[in-house]
Parts: sequence; C-alpha cells; structure tokens
Amino acid sequence: MTKKKVVLAYSGGLDTSVAVQWLTDQGYAVIACCLDVGEGKNLKEIQEKAIKVGAVNSYVIDAKEEFANEYALLALQAHAYYEDKYPLVSALSRPLISKKLVEVAEKEGATAVAHGCTGKGNDQVRFEVAIKALNPSLEVIAPVREWAWSREEEIEYAKEKNIPIPINLDSPYSIDQNLWGRSNECGILEDPWATPPEGAYGLTAALEDTPNTPEIIEIDFEKGVPVSINGEKYKLSDLIIHLNDIAGKHGIGRIDHVENRLVGIKSREVYECPGAITLLKAHKELEDITLIKDIAHFKPVVAKKLTELIYEGLWFSPLRNALEAFLKDTQQYVNGTVRVKLFKGHAIVEGRKSPNSLYNEKLATYTAEDAFDQSAAVGFIKLWGLPTEVHSMIHRKESVKK
Amino acid sequence: MTKKKVVLAYSGGLDTSVAVQWLTDQGYAVIACCLDVGEGKNLKEIQEKAIKVGAVNSYVIDAKEEFANEYALLALQAHAYYEDKYPLVSALSRPLISKKLVEVAEKEGATAVAHGCTGKGNDQVRFEVAIKALNPSLEVIAPVREWAWSREEEIEYAKEKNIPIPINLDSPYSIDQNLWGRSNECGILEDPWATPPEGAYGLTAALEDTPNTPEIIEIDFEKGVPVSINGEKYKLSDLIIHLNDIAGKHGIGRIDHVENRLVGIKSREVYECPGAITLLKAHKELEDITLIKDIAHFKPVVAKKLTELIYEGLWFSPLRNALEAFLKDTQQYVNGTVRVKLFKGHAIVEGRKSPNSLYNEKLATYTAEDAFDQSAAVGFIKLWGLPTEVHSMIHRKESVKK
Amino acid sequence: MTKKKVVLAYSGGLDTSVAVQWLTDQGYAVIACCLDVGEGKNLKEIQEKAIKVGAVNSYVIDAKEEFANEYALLALQAHAYYEDKYPLVSALSRPLISKKLVEVAEKEGATAVAHGCTGKGNDQVRFEVAIKALNPSLEVIAPVREWAWSREEEIEYAKEKNIPIPINLDSPYSIDQNLWGRSNECGILEDPWATPPEGAYGLTAALEDTPNTPEIIEIDFEKGVPVSINGEKYKLSDLIIHLNDIAGKHGIGRIDHVENRLVGIKSREVYECPGAITLLKAHKELEDITLIKDIAHFKPVVAKKLTELIYEGLWFSPLRNALEAFLKDTQQYVNGTVRVKLFKGHAIVEGRKSPNSLYNEKLATYTAEDAFDQSAAVGFIKLWGLPTEVHSMIHRKESVKK
Amino acid sequence: MTKKKVVLAYSGGLDTSVAVQWLTDQGYAVIACCLDVGEGKNLKEIQEKAIKVGAVNSYVIDAKEEFANEYALLALQAHAYYEDKYPLVSALSRPLISKKLVEVAEKEGATAVAHGCTGKGNDQVRFEVAIKALNPSLEVIAPVREWAWSREEEIEYAKEKNIPIPINLDSPYSIDQNLWGRSNECGILEDPWATPPEGAYGLTAALEDTPNTPEIIEIDFEKGVPVSINGEKYKLSDLIIHLNDIAGKHGIGRIDHVENRLVGIKSREVYECPGAITLLKAHKELEDITLIKDIAHFKPVVAKKLTELIYEGLWFSPLRNALEAFLKDTQQYVNGTVRVKLFKGHAIVEGRKSPNSLYNEKLATYTAEDAFDQSAAVGFIKLWGLPTEVHSMIHRKESVKK
Repeated sequence: MTKKKVVLAYSGGLDTSVAVQWLTDQGYAVIACCLDVGEGKNLKEIQEKAIKVGAVNSYVIDAKEEFANEYALLALQAHAYYEDKYPLVSALSRPLISKKLVEVAEKEGATAVAHGCTGKGNDQVRFEVAIKALNPSLEVIAPVREWAWSREEEIEYAKEKNIPIPINLDSPYSIDQNLWGRSNECGILEDPWATPPEGAYGLTAALEDTPNTPEIIEIDFEKGVPVSINGEKYKLSDLIIHLNDIAGKHGIGRIDHVENRLVGIKSREVYECPGAITLLKAHKELEDITLIKDIAHFKPVVAKKLTELIYEGLWFSPLRNALEAFLKDTQQYVNGTVRVKLFKGHAIVEGRKSPNSLYNEKLATYTAEDAFDQSAAVGFIKLWGLPTEVHSMIHRKESVKK
Repeated sequence: MTKKKVVLAYSGGLDTSVAVQWLTDQGYAVIACCLDVGEGKNLKEIQEKAIKVGAVNSYVIDAKEEFANEYALLALQAHAYYEDKYPLVSALSRPLISKKLVEVAEKEGATAVAHGCTGKGNDQVRFEVAIKALNPSLEVIAPVREWAWSREEEIEYAKEKNIPIPINLDSPYSIDQNLWGRSNECGILEDPWATPPEGAYGLTAALEDTPNTPEIIEIDFEKGVPVSINGEKYKLSDLIIHLNDIAGKHGIGRIDHVENRLVGIKSREVYECPGAITLLKAHKELEDITLIKDIAHFKPVVAKKLTELIYEGLWFSPLRNALEAFLKDTQQYVNGTVRVKLFKGHAIVEGRKSPNSLYNEKLATYTAEDAFDQSAAVGFIKLWGLPTEVHSMIHRKESVKK
Repeated sequence: MTKKKVVLAYSGGLDTSVAVQWLTDQGYAVIACCLDVGEGKNLKEIQEKAIKVGAVNSYVIDAKEEFANEYALLALQAHAYYEDKYPLVSALSRPLISKKLVEVAEKEGATAVAHGCTGKGNDQVRFEVAIKALNPSLEVIAPVREWAWSREEEIEYAKEKNIPIPINLDSPYSIDQNLWGRSNECGILEDPWATPPEGAYGLTAALEDTPNTPEIIEIDFEKGVPVSINGEKYKLSDLIIHLNDIAGKHGIGRIDHVENRLVGIKSREVYECPGAITLLKAHKELEDITLIKDIAHFKPVVAKKLTELIYEGLWFSPLRNALEAFLKDTQQYVNGTVRVKLFKGHAIVEGRKSPNSLYNEKLATYTAEDAFDQSAAVGFIKLWGLPTEVHSMIHRKESVKK
Repeated sequence: MTKKKVVLAYSGGLDTSVAVQWLTDQGYAVIACCLDVGEGKNLKEIQEKAIKVGAVNSYVIDAKEEFANEYALLALQAHAYYEDKYPLVSALSRPLISKKLVEVAEKEGATAVAHGCTGKGNDQVRFEVAIKALNPSLEVIAPVREWAWSREEEIEYAKEKNIPIPINLDSPYSIDQNLWGRSNECGILEDPWATPPEGAYGLTAALEDTPNTPEIIEIDFEKGVPVSINGEKYKLSDLIIHLNDIAGKHGIGRIDHVENRLVGIKSREVYECPGAITLLKAHKELEDITLIKDIAHFKPVVAKKLTELIYEGLWFSPLRNALEAFLKDTQQYVNGTVRVKLFKGHAIVEGRKSPNSLYNEKLATYTAEDAFDQSAAVGFIKLWGLPTEVHSMIHRKESVKK
C-alpha cells in the first residue's frame, strides 16, 4: 500500500528537519519544498539536506521575481504599513509559499500540507487559511504546534533520529527574511522597555557606523513600479536587493514595533526593511504630485483594509482582488522620477518630477506668474462655511465665552 | 458720528501694517490684536508698532499655554498628520487666533474682523469659517486679498503712508510659526524638484551639523498628556518649547511636502516640527502597549477625519467636539514612560513601559513561561478561514493554476 | 466539602432545564438566573421551575428598563443595522445577561457561569467574551455545546431525570425575543429561496391583515431619547413595548435576512422589530434636520463600527465606550418631534420639527424670501472643480470620445 | 464675422427657452441640445420648439440605454443612497448630459456651454465641474443664475420676445425625472413639517390606491446586471421602465428627504424611484448570498465614497474609475434569481438563489445534516476574546459594579 504524501514547507532549520522525521513517524511520505523569496538561501544545500533527513522528494523554487512582482509590489503601491509601522514582511511571503506548496501537493498527489509554525504566531493562520482557500480538500498539519515539545525534548528527538543540530541553536532570536525585509522576535526583545541590542539586526548598519557622506539616488517609476535606479534598469527583485544593500549601509529601515497579533496578543518585533522603506517613501512622494486629491485622500482607506487583510492571512480572499483592482487603477498616473538622499538612517526625498504632475507652478506660485483666481475664494469660503455658520446662528449663545 | 470698528489680526509685518492704514482709509477705526502662540514674538514692540502705524487700540495676548493644551495636544493625541505627513502647524493656530479676535471684537463692539491672508491659501478659509462660526454677525475683511496689489504697489503705498519697510523684505519665503512647528513656502520651494536650501530652515540643524553623540530622554505621559522630561515636570507649552530646542539641535522634524490645499491646488511646503515629531512618536509607542487592538485599529479612522476637519478650517464644527469626545475617552489608558534616543534627525523610541500595559510577557513569550494556549489556535483558524474555504469550494476551478 | 457553584443563564426551556441536571451531574451546585429583557416572561413560574428541576437557588431579574436605556437606546442612536438590515436584537441582550450572571456569580461566590448556546451561533461568542471581559477568573461552561446530544438523546436524558418536556417541543423554530425585537431561525427558514410562512412571525400582523386606516402618531425626542408618544410620557421600556404593539398591528418591522455570522457561516434569519423600526426611522429623520452635514456624514462610520462590535460580542471592549462618547456628544442636538404614519407595514415620517432645526427655510426657498447668496456659487464651483479641471488639462486626450 | 457658438442644455421649458433668446442677446449663436434619459420626452416637439424660440441648430439625443448601462447600473451595484435615503436621481444624469453637451460643442466648434440651473442647487455644480473636467477650455454660462430675474420679470421678457408661456406655469413644484426616478422640490414641500400632498407625486400610486393583490416577480441577474423579469429578457433601460410601471402601481419607492446639499444648505425633496428601489432591494439580497463577508462588509465603504462623489458632481474625477474598478470586480459573483413580492408600497424579497451562493445549508442547519465543527468554536472564542480578557485583567476593578 502506498503511503499518504505530505508536502512540507522546508527551511533547512532544526524544526522542519525534525518535522520530516516526525511526519514520517506518523506514516507520511514527506516531500520537502523550499522557496527562496529573497533571503539568500543556498537552495542546493537545503534540497540535499531534506533528502538527508528523510524526505522522499525535495523541491526548491526560486520565487524571488514572482514575490517581488505580485506580493511586494502590491505592498509598495498600497503603502502597506500594519499599524502605521510594519511593512508586512512575513505576511507577504506566506501566501506565495502556500501557493507553491499547494501546487506541489496537487502535482504530487499529496493529501496534506505541513508547515513549521508554532501555535501562537500569525504565520500559522496565514499558512492554513491560504492553503484551505487554495485547495479545501488538503489536510493541513502543524507538527511543531502538535508535538508541543520543549527545546530540550526536540533536541533529544533530533539526536535520536540523527538529525544534525545547527551550531547557532543558542541564538535567542526567531528570524524570518525575504526581499521586503527581515523580522526578528524573542529573547531580550520580549521586554518592550529594553533597547534592542545590535546583534538583533542583520541587514542594516547602526547609525553610529553609517557613512558620513550621503548617497543621492534617482529612482524612476512607471505606473507605480520602480524600474530603474540612477538610470539603470533592474528587474524588480534585483532592484529591491540592490536597494537593500545601499540603503542598508546607511542604516535605513529599522523598525521597533509592539504590535497586535491576529491571535489576540501583543508582541514586540524588530524589523529591517532598507529597500522597502526607501521605495515606500519615494513612491508616496511621487503620488503626492501625480494623484488627484480625491484619490490621495481615499486610497489610504483602501490601503488600510488591504494591509489588515494581508496581515490577517486573508490574501486569497476575493476582497483582495477587488482592493487590488482599485489600487492598480490609481497607479496609471504614478510615473516619474524621485531623487532620494540616503543618509544617517534617512531616505529623504529631495525632489520629485513627473510628466503627469498635477502640481501646477502657475497656480501655486505667489509670484507675478500667478494664474489662480483669488476672487473665487470669496464665494468658496462663503458656501464652505455656511453649515457651521447656520449651526452657530441656531445654537450660539455663549460659544465664544465658554 | 463714531466710526465702525474692525479688529485686525496684527503680526507687526508689512502686510498687516499696511492693512491698518488701508482699513483706516475705508473708514474703520482699527483695533490691532497680536497673539503669541509660541513663535517667540516681542509682544511689547508689536503692540507699540500697531499704534505707530495707525491703530486706535492694540491688544497683545500670550496664548501659548492655551494653544498647547487645547489645540496642539489634540493634534498630538490624534497623531494628526495631514496626508500622512504634515502635523497641522498653522491649521492649529488659526482657530485660536480667530477666537481671540472675536472675543476682542465683542468686547470692543467692533462690527468687523480682518486678517492678512491672500486669496489662494488655506488660512483665509480657516479664519473666515472660524469667525463666522463663532459670531455670524461679524463682517470679515481680507485687505490683502481685496487690494490685490503687486509687491511694488504695496511698498509704494507704505512709503506714502510712512509705514516702515522691514529690512528683510527681500526674503523669498513666506513663514508661519508656533509651538507646534514652523512652515515655509514660496521662492525656490515652488519647484518640487529642487532641494530645499539650508536657508529655508530655522528651527532645526542640518543632519550634517548635528551632534555625534545621541541624547536619550524619558518622557512621562499622564492620560495622553506629556507631563515631564527626564523626571522634570513642565507645563505643556514649556515642555514643547524645551523639546523644540533639544530635538531641533539633533535635526529632528524636517518635513518636505507637496500637499493638496483646500482651495483646489497642490503646493509645496517645508515644515520643521522637532518637538511635535518627538512627542508624536513617543505617544504612538505608548499607545501601542496601552490601547486594546480594537481601539488601536479604529482610532486612526477618527483621527484622519479630525485631521482633515482641522486642515479644512472646520475646527468649530460640532463634529470636532464629537471626535474629541472619542479621542479623550481613549486617552485614559495612555499612561507611562517612553525612552527616546535623539540622534541624527531621528527620535527613536527604544523602550516603553506603562502601569496599564496590555503587553503581557507571559502570553507573548516563547520561553517556558508561556501562558498562551496554543491549542486554541486550531479552532480559531478553522472558523477564521471558513469564509474563504467555502468561497473556494464554490468557485474554485483553477485558482491555483491561474 | 462544599460543591463548586455555577450560575446558569436559565430560560425555563428544555435545554437549560436539562443543563441544570447535567451540571449537577458534573458536581456543581447550580444557581439559576433568568432575566426579563422584554420578552414578556412569567418570571415567577420560571423561578420555581428552576428549583423544581434541581437548581439550589434561583434568581429572576426584571431588566427591561436597564436594557432599554443602556442597550436598546444606543442601538437606536447609532441607527445600528448589521449589514444594513438587522437591528441587533439578540446581540444587544447578551452583554446585559452576561453582566447579571457575573454579578450573581460574584455575589454567590460561584466559580463558573454557564449558558445554553450551541457551538455554531453568535451568542456563545457574545456570552463567553462578555463574561471573560467582566471577570476573567470565572470559568465559562456551555453544556449544550459540550454534551453534543441529538434531540432524541436529550429527551431521553430529560425523561430519565424527570425533567418536564414542553408540549411545543416540535416547533421547528429557534426563537429569541426582547424589547428590541424577535428573531427566528431554523426549520423551513434554512432554505433561503423559501418564503417564510406566517407561522414564523409572532409580533407583527401580515400585510394582508393590517388595518385599512392609517394611524398617525407623534413621537417627541429629547437629546436623542424618545420620551413621549402623542404627548404622553413613557419610560423608555414602556414606550418601546407600546410601539411594538401599535406598530406590530400595522405589520411594521418584518426583516428577512441572510447574514454573515461571526463564526464564519451565512445563516438565514427572520426578525420582527415593529417598535425598533418605527423609532429608528423617526430618529433618523430628526437627525436629518438637526445634525450638521459634517456629523451626518461621519456618524455612520462610527455607527457601523459600533454595530459590528456589538454583533461580534465585543460590547465590553473599551472601544465601545469611546464610540459611545462620540455618539452621545452628537445627541445633544436631537430634540424635536416627528410625525409618523403607521400604515400597511410602513412607518412613514411625514413631518419633523425641532427647536434646533438647521433647516433654514429662508436659505432653502425658491420664493422671493430667498436669503441665499447665489453669486457665491460661482467661486465655490470654480475651486471645487479645480482639481478635476487641472487633472483634465494634464491627462486629457480623448476623454470625451472614449 | 461669425458669432461665437454656445451649446445650451435645452429642456423645452420656459427657463431654457428664455435662455435661447438671452444668449442670443449676448451675441451667441445658440445650439440647443436635448436628451431623453428616460423621462418620456417628445424629442421631436422639443427639437422644433428650440428652433422656434431662436436656436440656430437643435440636437435631440435618446440617451436612455447609455444612461441605464453606464450611470444607473453603477448606482444599482453600489447600492447608492445619498445619506442612506436618496438614490441619486438627478445626480446621475448630469454627467451624461454634460458629456453630450461637450461632444456637441466640440463637433460644432462652440466655445461655450450653457445650462439652465439656478445658483443654489447641486446641479449647477455637477454641470460645471463635469464640463470643465471634460474640456477645460470651454466657457460655462448659467443664464438663469446670471439674469437673476423674478418670475414676473422672466415672463415679461418672454412675452416681449414672443416665447410661448407654458400653461402649467403656476405649478408650485420643480421637477426632474429620468429612468432612475423623479425628484420634486419647492412649494409646500419647503415646510419639512408638512405632509407632501398627493399632487407632489407622479410615478407612484398612493398606498390607499394600490391593488389588494400582490404581484410576485422573479428578477434574474448576471454579474450584477438585471437581465430579465419573470424569465423575459429586457435591455436595461426597458427593464427599468417596465419596473417603474409595475412597481409604481404598487406604490413602491416614495422617499421624503431633508438632505444636505453640496452648497451648504439643507433642502427637502420628495423622490419616487419605483424601479430603482425594487432593483436595489433585489440586488442587495442576491449579494447577501453571493458575496463573501469580507467584501460584504467593505463594499459599503467604497460605495459610500462613490455615492458622495457622484452627489457632489465629481463623476469625472479619476477616483470614480478606481472605485468602479473595485465594484465591478465584486459583481462577477452576483449571479442568480431573486423573487420579489410587490405589495402595498413594499418590494419584499421572499427568496433568493444563485449558482454562486455561499450560503451552505449543510453548515447552517441545526438538523442532523450539520457539517459544522462546533468544537472549533471553543478555540475561536478564546482567541477572539483574548484582548478584552487581558484588558480586563489589567484594568478591572469594579467594571461590573459600576
């Protein structure tokens, strides 16, 4: 009789290596599947390791460009900051990883998919909701949540099964990374009064160590997509990686956030998003000159909803498609160039220009060039203030005195 | 026969000095009224100058503490950034100035109030709507908008009337300042591609000139009000002034913004808000640990409305009172201390603590102390993802493949 | 040794009567607690029945007026319709019942609270979240969800324990009722294509059976509270009961709704809210003349959040207090009289008047009395349309032709 | 020398007939342009009359189907009720009329466009903003607003110019009508306490005169578009006209509204929208079974914005396109049939079914067929209520007692 197959999201680390064995113990044939979404993995090594620790098959997928174009780009165009701070790092990669897992499962005829998340984070929700949304007939297994072992018990089991124990096992941190940034939690970070130690960071220089000379770059956008830096074209994943590098050197994009998780608790996380923050700032400034006020003022409402939807694991809700349709429609205007000064942790937009700019110097100027009809203001103000004036005529008694 | 009286918002500058004479020419007895809302004016000098240029009476009012407590504080608690960038500097002082003008007008039996705004900015709207809301029977006059003179014509008139011409008349900028910050427009700033020159700034050091040593401060909040710095109590206006000083030295709070004015045009402005930005960051972080998720996620909706209302000159709409009632109710929880590192243009919150903190280390931790029931996640995820799962069962055909 | 005490929300029906015994079997001393929130219960009978089926103590509480003033009134002032249809009938009573259960538990020194909900409705969430919010140390038990019996098994157990079986046990419906309305689900209603049979309704006449003569009533409001009908004062609970009676006769307030439950499924329910709908219509019309446009346009945003919060069982979230602070601030203006024609299922507002009316006939009229300055419109339109005009100047190519 | 040409929105009534002459007096060659958007005009007669009163050319355009498909349909799919009451009757036709005027102006080489609105309504704003958005180089003229005559002066002028005076000139009302409904203001309606007299209505029967037998119809929708009634296909304009007829007989769709105009005043209007209301109710019910909760709860936010945008004359803002992109994306699911009972002023949806229905009887039922996993609720509730539970643990002192 053939064994039931499970596709496991495999990272090469201890938890998922142990999971290969644990799932095998449960009677599954384990197919490992590892994605590179920009964290710079050695995919070949991981592919081999999966087999070594007991997988019957091992997939590795370079998903960087797909991640950049279909996930990170949407976050950029939405100015997606969860709780006005967190640019949705891990929340963006989970649906893509889920999609690839389901694709492999369907191809391999697997009946289950497994992930390595614990039971208290957001990622378990994102994986499971996404997988069920993509293929409701697949079973989802969360070995780490199920076995509920202490660190010691897990190591014990690993030793028994000849699973190699990583040398950096005593790192206090729990880290996740992709093109759009790096997140870090646990250890000393669990005390929200404690300053994050330098060791908590991996992508950015400390302000104290940044260059004393600024770097000024120009980023070109076409329909809201960053396409070149200093005139040089990049595909999107390369552009972000390149920016992570140069903005990271200038210490840009460190975020220290106590956030509300979907599962009902607050947690403190430290993020680094040098490329993302640089692009988010530049994109916003280009929108400021190219979007009409109506759109500029309502887009954040749509974007906030999209941000929460993604954070909450509902990427594959049809609502995302509708929100995306709105956003994409607005991006047709977002063409032009932004000049950014990278310096001492700042991505300072110093200039922006666009063939679609709605900034009209003739209307804005206070010089003799002025084309604005100042007399129109009189009638405008009269009607604009009429409701409060009428309200006052009815209710006024001592409004000024009170 | 007695002349009709007008109360003029008097700044001591050329425009309003000329306005004293121009209004006198129109047959008014002019009562000058000058407020200090934190820009550091010499009120005595201005009071005398008003009389010198023809006012029949001259009021000066130190409104700093009232401005801090009733206007700036609300902006702080609302995290009020217009278009996610501008912390409402001038928009906050206009209603207070209007209120004082109306009070003086009622006391003096004046029939009109006058302000020195042109016809293309937001401030004319703010003044006129506020005045009409406070006392609909008062006439509002905008001399600068009405006379519509060129700079040369205005100087001609001033000379003829013996009005002293300021020496810095050739400054290209148009500046407004109060406790909450400084705004600057005009001149080279009208080109949104041009980097603002250092001369455009007045409250903050250039990053290049900031100290190489950070300054770390602790700010205590009581019910959302900052009450002390490093343990030393301040009244609110002094606290903000003090922060403007120390944060300004570190180059904090420069903002370069192309914004959508209420009167239908885009304009580019440069703001400096060292104290405001420092407080806004600290206050947000304290909210992050003290506000329940429900409030944390809905408060921005209320705050956005309040911000737009204030920007658009509707401070005295009764909607502001209702929005304020919401906000004040949330602030009862915002007690505690925030540690901020001032360095190289950044106000970095490194730690936050509160007797009301909802951050629960026992629930958040990944150590053996964990009090979170991880098994609850299974049922949660099942129901959380049920709608997308059902949607998929009905609609799924090739969702994965597409 | 004393037994642990549990306070059970007791209705007198089969489920909760069985629950008394079942909880006793689990080793609890059961304290029954029954509230009248306007469904017209015979509290004395229920009190005695609880003892008869095994409760050690039995509380009955007339909570009608508290329910009217603190729960139904807020729903009225918020125009709370979940999904624009359902006026929150059961969702409103659950937090009050929870509060009373917790009060009794604290008074009696009970360690647990129990309710009779199943595992697929909203009410289990509302009870349990409310109880935990009021006293996190209390255990919450859901006997019906736990025992998971079929109807037959439950009856078997009841017979065995000498619990009287109600005669109407074969009713296909599941009904809940209070002052604010009556909800009904199950049976034929589970088919959303089927017309609800007349037997599904209990509070309202069929349109076919309503009087052929309309009834015209005048309702007076003070600060948003309905205080009298046709000049006669009522306390709020009596006013609503009275309106349920007269509006019910005219067939007002039937609602047939397929709604999204909190637990992830859609369900079809039939509601009857004759008094509620009449008051909701009248209150809205009074607001239409007394609230300034700013408030009229933003209040629905606050109200929608409040409605969802209540539906979702989060009455005791501090967000409710903040939302309520907003709403109460707006109600100071809602004074006046509304004339309503009750006829053929309609509550038609035919007239509304208020000492605070912002409707200004002088400004609205097209007669010679007109006090509106029509020339102001020219300037207003110019600036109002300026952004779209500028947008067109930049982007127009063939906008008209396309 | 050739005269400048103006294209006038011509209705055939007194105001626009006088405007032909008045514009001719101003030196223009007047091109009349009359649209039928469903009000049942005799276009041929109007075309001739325009020439008779002095137009140099006269266009008539049957725009019913374009109006139905591109304007009314969007309002239907958005459930567009301004201030939760008014289904945007005139607000919908103004942009289409403006578009046709601009097209004619461009074709004829006219330099100006004129409309017959006064200076205190919304329609002047809608026309002028739309025209400027479509072609900023066109001048817009509002003769009625400019001449500012009393009724008597206008008649005097008409007599002098041999313009025929309509016999119904003493009608107290001001009426506008199209496919989507009929609006009426002025006269006795200006008193918001007065019941609208029967004479104010034109499309609907009084409840007292409606049939005593209900009419039950089935409406089929495809992607949110109503396509057939009782199985018979109609093009959209015909379907709406047909529904206006049958629903009008049953007295459906009378609305009496005191609304906030864009120009700062409140006005009282009476609307009749029998077809629109019937379709709006049916469409909403079909969405209730076909849209996922996420969409069902956020679509109203988008729809409210769209509704306000249209009401406020900003149809041609690019924001409308983005909002429309969102809405159209949601309509792919809105397929199915709704059964509506037309009776005594009600359009009662009694049944709804869809091949895309997300209502799952297996999940919703309380019978033995139940497929819902009730045990999942326990974990769900635990995490759903965790924030309020933690909040209570920190803040609870006497929450229950207070």
